Amino acid sequence: MNPTLEIFSQGEEIVTGQVVDTNAAWLSQQAVNMGFTVTRHTAVGDKLEDLTQVLLDISARADCCICTGGLGPTSDDLTAEAVATAFAVPLVFDEIAYAQIAQFFHHRNRDMPECNRKQALLPQGSIRLDNHTGTAPGFALKHGRCWFAFVPGVPSEMRQLFLDHIQPMLASRFTLLPDKLITIKTIGIGESDLQERINTIGIPSQVKLGFRAELGEVQIKLLFPGDYPDEGRETLTNRIAASIGDAVYTIEDTGHPPGDLVSVVDQLMTIGGHTLAIMETVSHGLLAAKLVGTTWLQNALIEQSIESLTHRLQVDYHPDDLVATAKAIAMAMQKNSGADMALIQLTSSSGIADSNQKQGTTVISLLGVNNQFTHAVRTLVGDINRKQQQSALLSLDLLRRHLQANAIDREKS
Amino acid sequence: MNPTLEIFSQGEEIVTGQVVDTNAAWLSQQAVNMGFTVTRHTAVGDKLEDLTQVLLDISARADCCICTGGLGPTSDDLTAEAVATAFAVPLVFDEIAYAQIAQFFHHRNRDMPECNRKQALLPQGSIRLDNHTGTAPGFALKHGRCWFAFVPGVPSEMRQLFLDHIQPMLASRFTLLPDKLITIKTIGIGESDLQERINTIGIPSQVKLGFRAELGEVQIKLLFPGDYPDEGRETLTNRIAASIGDAVYTIEDTGHPPGDLVSVVDQLMTIGGHTLAIMETVSHGLLAAKLVGTTWLQNALIEQSIESLTHRLQVDYHPDDLVATAKAIAMAMQKNSGADMALIQLTSSSGIADSNQKQGTTVISLLGVNNQFTHAVRTLVGDINRKQQQSALLSLDLLRRHLQANAIDREKS
Repeated sequence: MNPTLEIFSQGEEIVTGQVVDTNAAWLSQQAVNMGFTVTRHTAVGDKLEDLTQVLLDISARADCCICTGGLGPTSDDLTAEAVATAFAVPLVFDEIAYAQIAQFFHHRNRDMPECNRKQALLPQGSIRLDNHTGTAPGFALKHGRCWFAFVPGVPSEMRQLFLDHIQPMLASRFTLLPDKLITIKTIGIGESDLQERINTIGIPSQVKLGFRAELGEVQIKLLFPGDYPDEGRETLTNRIAASIGDAVYTIEDTGHPPGDLVSVVDQLMTIGGHTLAIMETVSHGLLAAKLVGTTWLQNALIEQSIESLTHRLQVDYHPDDLVATAKAIAMAMQKNSGADMALIQLTSSSGIADSNQKQGTTVISLLGVNNQFTHAVRTLVGDINRKQQQSALLSLDLLRRHLQANAIDREKS
Repeated sequence: MNPTLEIFSQGEEIVTGQVVDTNAAWLSQQAVNMGFTVTRHTAVGDKLEDLTQVLLDISARADCCICTGGLGPTSDDLTAEAVATAFAVPLVFDEIAYAQIAQFFHHRNRDMPECNRKQALLPQGSIRLDNHTGTAPGFALKHGRCWFAFVPGVPSEMRQLFLDHIQPMLASRFTLLPDKLITIKTIGIGESDLQERINTIGIPSQVKLGFRAELGEVQIKLLFPGDYPDEGRETLTNRIAASIGDAVYTIEDTGHPPGDLVSVVDQLMTIGGHTLAIMETVSHGLLAAKLVGTTWLQNALIEQSIESLTHRLQVDYHPDDLVATAKAIAMAMQKNSGADMALIQLTSSSGIADSNQKQGTTVISLLGVNNQFTHAVRTLVGDINRKQQQSALLSLDLLRRHLQANAIDREKS
């Protein structure tokens, strides 16, 4: 039997529905991956009585509980007080926590307001969980049968504290036999097409098969019991991946850090020693934004008007031949930027701002390794934000397929 | 005292974190707008014992509860059975529900699977809630002090059943006086600083004060009881806003659609008839990405190397004087793009890619209305994605302050 774990979220913004509680889902996934059985989520507002009661109930019911929110400096942040009341432990002033909070303000050249002092009051006997990105330290303690960990509700801080402190702590305190999750990540192929290809392969009944679709990407989830033989797992995974072909951009293992399309492209560009210039229309900066931190993106351009761009670059604009126009722009950008590759988006609707209404044809083209020119023509649908996301992904995927095909060619020769 | 309402979600996909429970947030907002006090969200998996216990607990605690999920045709859909067990009422076959389910399949030219018959079994004495978009009817019944309504977990069906049946039913069964929520949205000022400024203003005890922080933005939430006088509400809101000054970028009323920083800037730019060119370093395309759909962003540039940019624009590069360099780039971009305003980011670290490690100084500058030049110097901290977000927000906010100040000047003259 796996140990049980509950998620407890605090905040008026959650119970009143102003914020969707994405923390609960993220933490549950992490806990399931570690080998816990997640049994319950609870959320209450900023009421001391409710907080106290929920803490007491959980301490009698679960083996572990992760609590988010209520650690801020303001008067509606009541978690530490609720812990003190529920578990009858005094709050004590933690010198190190205080020094860290003071340092947070010092680094930002700001005076520390008096009310932040409160965040250094931790339940006696609890383990402090240092927070390097915000002011609120987390803390952990055991009450009844249950190990509690308390973290801020800000998602980035919550994730950092979970990964840095809570995950290792739980791994050492519980005996866990986690299921093994394999994720096959694909792009450019639909969920039902994937299902049909996989149907031809026999999946053993112990293996749980699931799909998760978001925008252009579909992930195939294979959940293997902890005692499933390694070899059988690998064989099955490879057979499924082979049946899907080059739409698979990566295969993720429980143990490996999450690799999205950006990190796969980043690796391929870095290994190949390439540099890139891009021109975005529909994705409107989102492609460049996703590539933040890469060293090979030389520059990027977002243009409202193709006419004024072609004029400035002194290349011909063929409104009826977007592919030829894209190729001319790519060559000019390659020359101007000094990058060895250029990725260009063009759309048939006159202005980008119109793309909310129109189902414009989008041409995504790449002047790639050894000046090979490839392109894809797509009709994007949905609202403007969906088109923006889709076109950024499709552009990245064109680049990914080109780089992977070239890497395979190099291996062969 | 408002009647209390709880949300109860059922499903393994929710407790394991595969699905984020957006239903709970949506229903809570609806309930708060009607005048309920939402006190708790609970989610459990498909376990009869847990479901039964939660239903009993809620029936003793809340005046109303909306339950989602568990009404499907498969063996893991246990809600009706749990209701029967918890409240000791038999399930009875509902002829009309059965006819509706049969019709659902008939309309789609599909045979009705035997397992769907189960969905016509409803607790004796409950009110059937007809479902016109799916197979599962909802139902409502009272137990203990609590009115329960049960709806499917599919968001579109849940919403339709709530709006068509549950909302009118609750409005007729409860005496409701909805609270009024005012949200003061600020940027560029910390949560604890805000708290200190507001502390100097006496907030009546009936008014609930809350804060919500995300990245650079902090929202102040003021929840007024429904019978609080309009004039008093306006006076208090204005006093708080005045104590904060120009860090307030908008004030939102219960009735008004949510306006974020982008939509406030979009309105100001559109009303002023301005156009803009931007150059991003740290935000790396994210600023342009946020402005998708606006008509006034002429073009945007993301540059890895300030040196090569200044070279291309033929302006002087002063490594020791980023402000002067930014001004020169702004003037060149304004000229090249034909836009009347230019927003420029520069950072002291040599390359953008380095900004993960370094705490580089970032200069955000604007060549604005009538060629007024303003700038802000900030030290950004955190990981690269946080810096990217912060710099995009700070840039937008510099633009917002400039436009609002000019709008006030125009009004005065």
